[in-house]
Amino acid sequence: MITSENILKRYNEIRAYTENIFRPLKTEDYVAQPITETSPPKWSLGHTTWFFETFVLKKFKKDYQLYNEDYPLLFNSYYNYEGNRISRHKRGDLTRPTVEEVFQYRHSVDQEMIAFMQEDLTEEATNFIELGLQHEQQHQELFWTDLKYTFSLNPLFPKYEGRFPFSSHTYFNNPMKFIKMPEGIYEIGHKENAFCYDNELGAHKVYLHDFQIADRPVTNAEYLEFMNDGGYQNFDHWHDEAWYWLQQEHISSPLYWHKKEGKWMNYSLTGLQPLNPDQLVTHISYYEAFAFARWKGMRLPTEFEWEAASSKFEWGKRWEWTESAYLPYPGYKRAEGAVGEYNGKFMVNQKVLRGASIYTSPGHSRYTYRNFFHPLARWQFSGIRLAK
Amino acid sequence: MITSENILKRYNEIRAYTENIFRPLKTEDYVAQPITETSPPKWSLGHTTWFFETFVLKKFKKDYQLYNEDYPLLFNSYYNYEGNRISRHKRGDLTRPTVEEVFQYRHSVDQEMIAFMQEDLTEEATNFIELGLQHEQQHQELFWTDLKYTFSLNPLFPKYEGRFPFSSHTYFNNPMKFIKMPEGIYEIGHKENAFCYDNELGAHKVYLHDFQIADRPVTNAEYLEFMNDGGYQNFDHWHDEAWYWLQQEHISSPLYWHKKEGKWMNYSLTGLQPLNPDQLVTHISYYEAFAFARWKGMRLPTEFEWEAASSKFEWGKRWEWTESAYLPYPGYKRAEGAVGEYNGKFMVNQKVLRGASIYTSPGHSRYTYRNFFHPLARWQFSGIRLAK
Amino acid sequence: MITSENILKRYNEIRAYTENIFRPLKTEDYVAQPITETSPPKWSLGHTTWFFETFVLKKFKKDYQLYNEDYPLLFNSYYNYEGNRISRHKRGDLTRPTVEEVFQYRHSVDQEMIAFMQEDLTEEATNFIELGLQHEQQHQELFWTDLKYTFSLNPLFPKYEGRFPFSSHTYFNNPMKFIKMPEGIYEIGHKENAFCYDNELGAHKVYLHDFQIADRPVTNAEYLEFMNDGGYQNFDHWHDEAWYWLQQEHISSPLYWHKKEGKWMNYSLTGLQPLNPDQLVTHISYYEAFAFARWKGMRLPTEFEWEAASSKFEWGKRWEWTESAYLPYPGYKRAEGAVGEYNGKFMVNQKVLRGASIYTSPGHSRYTYRNFFHPLARWQFSGIRLAK
Amino acid sequence: MITSENILKRYNEIRAYTENIFRPLKTEDYVAQPITETSPPKWSLGHTTWFFETFVLKKFKKDYQLYNEDYPLLFNSYYNYEGNRISRHKRGDLTRPTVEEVFQYRHSVDQEMIAFMQEDLTEEATNFIELGLQHEQQHQELFWTDLKYTFSLNPLFPKYEGRFPFSSHTYFNNPMKFIKMPEGIYEIGHKENAFCYDNELGAHKVYLHDFQIADRPVTNAEYLEFMNDGGYQNFDHWHDEAWYWLQQEHISSPLYWHKKEGKWMNYSLTGLQPLNPDQLVTHISYYEAFAFARWKGMRLPTEFEWEAASSKFEWGKRWEWTESAYLPYPGYKRAEGAVGEYNGKFMVNQKVLRGASIYTSPGHSRYTYRNFFHPLARWQFSGIRLAK
Repeated sequence: MITSENILKRYNEIRAYTENIFRPLKTEDYVAQPITETSPPKWSLGHTTWFFETFVLKKFKKDYQLYNEDYPLLFNSYYNYEGNRISRHKRGDLTRPTVEEVFQYRHSVDQEMIAFMQEDLTEEATNFIELGLQHEQQHQELFWTDLKYTFSLNPLFPKYEGRFPFSSHTYFNNPMKFIKMPEGIYEIGHKENAFCYDNELGAHKVYLHDFQIADRPVTNAEYLEFMNDGGYQNFDHWHDEAWYWLQQEHISSPLYWHKKEGKWMNYSLTGLQPLNPDQLVTHISYYEAFAFARWKGMRLPTEFEWEAASSKFEWGKRWEWTESAYLPYPGYKRAEGAVGEYNGKFMVNQKVLRGASIYTSPGHSRYTYRNFFHPLARWQFSGIRLAK
Repeated sequence: MITSENILKRYNEIRAYTENIFRPLKTEDYVAQPITETSPPKWSLGHTTWFFETFVLKKFKKDYQLYNEDYPLLFNSYYNYEGNRISRHKRGDLTRPTVEEVFQYRHSVDQEMIAFMQEDLTEEATNFIELGLQHEQQHQELFWTDLKYTFSLNPLFPKYEGRFPFSSHTYFNNPMKFIKMPEGIYEIGHKENAFCYDNELGAHKVYLHDFQIADRPVTNAEYLEFMNDGGYQNFDHWHDEAWYWLQQEHISSPLYWHKKEGKWMNYSLTGLQPLNPDQLVTHISYYEAFAFARWKGMRLPTEFEWEAASSKFEWGKRWEWTESAYLPYPGYKRAEGAVGEYNGKFMVNQKVLRGASIYTSPGHSRYTYRNFFHPLARWQFSGIRLAK
Repeated sequence: MITSENILKRYNEIRAYTENIFRPLKTEDYVAQPITETSPPKWSLGHTTWFFETFVLKKFKKDYQLYNEDYPLLFNSYYNYEGNRISRHKRGDLTRPTVEEVFQYRHSVDQEMIAFMQEDLTEEATNFIELGLQHEQQHQELFWTDLKYTFSLNPLFPKYEGRFPFSSHTYFNNPMKFIKMPEGIYEIGHKENAFCYDNELGAHKVYLHDFQIADRPVTNAEYLEFMNDGGYQNFDHWHDEAWYWLQQEHISSPLYWHKKEGKWMNYSLTGLQPLNPDQLVTHISYYEAFAFARWKGMRLPTEFEWEAASSKFEWGKRWEWTESAYLPYPGYKRAEGAVGEYNGKFMVNQKVLRGASIYTSPGHSRYTYRNFFHPLARWQFSGIRLAK
Repeated sequence: MITSENILKRYNEIRAYTENIFRPLKTEDYVAQPITETSPPKWSLGHTTWFFETFVLKKFKKDYQLYNEDYPLLFNSYYNYEGNRISRHKRGDLTRPTVEEVFQYRHSVDQEMIAFMQEDLTEEATNFIELGLQHEQQHQELFWTDLKYTFSLNPLFPKYEGRFPFSSHTYFNNPMKFIKMPEGIYEIGHKENAFCYDNELGAHKVYLHDFQIADRPVTNAEYLEFMNDGGYQNFDHWHDEAWYWLQQEHISSPLYWHKKEGKWMNYSLTGLQPLNPDQLVTHISYYEAFAFARWKGMRLPTEFEWEAASSKFEWGKRWEWTESAYLPYPGYKRAEGAVGEYNGKFMVNQKVLRGASIYTSPGHSRYTYRNFFHPLARWQFSGIRLAK
């Protein structure tokens, strides 16, 4: 449970974690934004700081003066309640403030926050701080996915030059097994007395018919079978919109795969390397996950099936695409004001992913967590778990 | 139940119905295709005929010779299994075959079909004929929506010069009431021994929490309150993608509404007329339906809630947007081959609409029917039913 | 010279010529507009009539009442002085007025015009009528190019079902010869007492260095040598923008050429036929004309060279791309008001073509005539004359 | 004249000049590329170095080893002869090599070049070195225009923090006078024994009719009169394509002008400041220059008029738009191989600008110099000189 006692400790740890993963970058790496969906690391640093400044200091600290009157314009992401902001796809055009100026902004807000947390915190303020920390952890994972995307476009195939903050293995060569789940009523959604996002609330019952779900995600070797069987060339496996997308974008393998002299190579933050068949396949869109499952004669689980069965399998290595659209739970209440913009306004045209990835920050995963992306997104650490 | 005895009668009636509604058009009206989503009437005439030729005559009639070897290229809509076809957005570029040539094609196929139906029909062939008739009825409604769209762009505001095939009233000034539905398990999906589309199959149980649903759709007067309260100008009511769409498309009222000298006018196939406040609002997108409901402090029903409650209210005047995404039912099986392309490959990025409209052909509506469109589609006869 | 005596005769002849070439079309052919650059025949019929109504009847005839108050909105092409109009790319969306209604509009305006011309015409009115006739002749040629473009997209490859209004041969197998022109001062521009467009006025002197110019345009056989030598695959022949255009549009032959079973076919209004090597190449862009000339070690003539030498060679079968940009002559004066919009506002980003084509209407060609199109336009009857 | 004696001195001076102007940037400033037309400073640094490596060292130095095998892919601009390259609009996506690595590349090539120039230089090699130096000077001016564009997008309106390398005044409040030039034959093009670009060669005669040309460019005060007279709102001043461009891009003032509380401000590299009415107007497109001249009842000079009269007026503060299209001179010969791609392949769809700007590097301006940009380009230091 979140208390004013442990929140300061968490704040220091999580903010330090961010700096630890960013610091190995070169200054130049902080600037580029090759596509609208990714953010420059400099912007992420500023934005996570703006979040605390806006939703904690400005709101709860008496007579707080903004660090810089222009920064909200630069670092607000999508909160209409918080006023104007530069267009999302223009974040990479801003060379100023410099990286060190953004770190100064960060440290100034940290000092204000630390002083503030040593006062008598209300529960409301504590909840906003916790939200800011969870938000920061989301950006920690986006740091990896965005950086990987930018580096992958560079013919020099740069490597990340720091230490990776995890050691979890993602290699499997055991046969996939299926877990049987009986028909019945299941309870879905967050019920504990701990932090969760508003989209997990509205715990409710769902009726599930019997189904089976795989005990592990799909590997590269298994995905290669699909490719070698002409999977990307046979319209029958694909949604209609997916089939157009394949043709238009000339897609015939997962993102970051390169065929060099007849051999599959894979770009990761450790550089361009031969593809490991036993690794879990990743950087695939929902469209590809669906097509693979259909080719296999199976399907993807719904998010309800996933949650109901999640205690019976290992998860947390890949964000697993589900068949479910991202929609409000029956009792969903959007919060008032800017914080209500966090989740609710995105509940259309997106698919739910469940689980977590090896890049998800420690303490940031729950079996009720609902991640969401558009069905064609590939730059996240996404994967496939089969159901039938 | 469909039998070889009544199928011929149905064939003749439904094919004649098509000709009755098309014939009042001028030749010129058959050609234009202002947007990709609409089809020229000439194309629809040919396409519905191609459907019978391809899926019945070519498949079941011995030694059947195609009427014209080039027509499948022209009149195939989206069936990859049936080979190449002209791009969907290029249907309006084709001035040939002429309208009368397409009617000749139609009559030739009709003669072949009638002869064929007088032989000993297999159940499989009968099912395909029935599918073709249901398909033709869908295009009967599209005839109205596509024609209305094309005419609406013309500064002359043309009228449809034939008789309208319905007389149902769509005017309400009674207060909206809400029907209470208790929590519990409900059965969803088609179970009767009659025709339905494959997407209705896989009857299954769902668990619904208690909810209330309106006894009638929303009227123009009610929608105007939303507009007059600044509904199109307040981001808080809208999904994030909807808000961008509003700005980009400069949308601030339902489709076909025109403000002339301070007064709202409405274009319909009877011409441009003053807006009737008591008429059910129509030609709104899912985005607008959602925003209206949120402004009202309510929500849209799910398709399951709609179906569970449908026996308790009148429906059939507007296609009613639901909150549900168009997804397969638990036991959904896509048919093999081209017919499997009818529904399954569209099950992403679309929303379910339930009910029917006053333009839906007689005998073509069911409480289990799942219509689907993208959330920004406005040219259908869509409407809003509230839930809470 | 234009007089009030012969203008009526010309009016009747030219207006009848238009009807003669349009009448063999099917009604459907009048409607389609596959690209912004082409106009539906129905629109052209109305627009040329609107031109007389606007610039003659409305201007000079006392108390003239418009035939239909809405028609200017429909049939104004690009005259800002004449008020609003439907967007150019939306002309194909208008199914009404019908073809016969547009012919009625035409005949009504003809009657008014004929009555008006039998009165005492001012010189100013006579000049506007003559401008309207020249304008109508331009649309007569556009009738052919636009129709050919629309028909060419149809897999049925329709033929024009009337008589062609010319008999000029366009076949050559004699070796190309070069005419030598000496250095010196030449006079350029229109000086006679006959009609010309304002862009031909401002007769002036230019200094030309000695040059040689071909006695005939390039044939298909000669162009095929370029293609067979990899002309479309070698960047060195092409402008930078042309090279991008080739890749993006996948262009590797003139418009309307089709390779069927290893043999080049050519679509024309007489249908799809084997390519005739002795015919003059046509439907090529300026980019292709330039690349061909560069490959040949030569260049295109400037419009001044062309005009200076034009009495020494045969021309009039193809519109011949020149190296000259479409710019005002030194003494160019744009006319006041709407008529000034005829030519002047297009003098940027376009290339001059000189000569005429076999589809140019009788009496509509002059050696001072300046036609102009964007460098990538291919649907006109364009060709190549070499210089060095 | 270029000799092997002075080329080394020039090399050192010009290469040092580049570093002097770049060094005041922050590292972040080297990376961003907000539009395709501008290049990141880091790329420009690498590209000018690649130019010497490719066209001098690789070509003339025995056994020269490339500094890095991947750099040509990164730093080739548009030379098809020199092989593949990253797309122009993706230069800002590359965070590596770092700025310091590019400086190292630069210094390594400098050392190789200096050693090479101390050997016995052939005339051909000397010419390529001189071309490289001229090329570098062009990029020195682009440094300023590209940086200004990027900074201008930043709500912080950053300033350039180094010294500006010029002191020329650009303020005028004397009345504009017109110089009369008599009709006759003039010689155009480069004839001296000094460096020029290939597009200036082919000295030739032109016949000019009498004309008058202004003794100075147009000021902000004069341009404001046009704006205050509704210049941007009256279609009659504008080319047709310009008028569409204005509407689409919402343009109603020169680039970098901002209206704040009813007062015009101007962004420059010294920050956002009140507009100085006596300064020469700049950052306007050809379209705006043309519209201004037409509003004034005058016109722009041709490049031939400009060159013929250039000894009679002061120039060099603004690149002055001319009415001339960028086309080859009569005797133009494109060089063989990659160097031939420098100018010739851009001779379509662009307009010639004559003169120079205050940012043009010392020794880089000639009265025969032909600069060229698309008619809508505004980020160069362009201006207007009137003719009549």
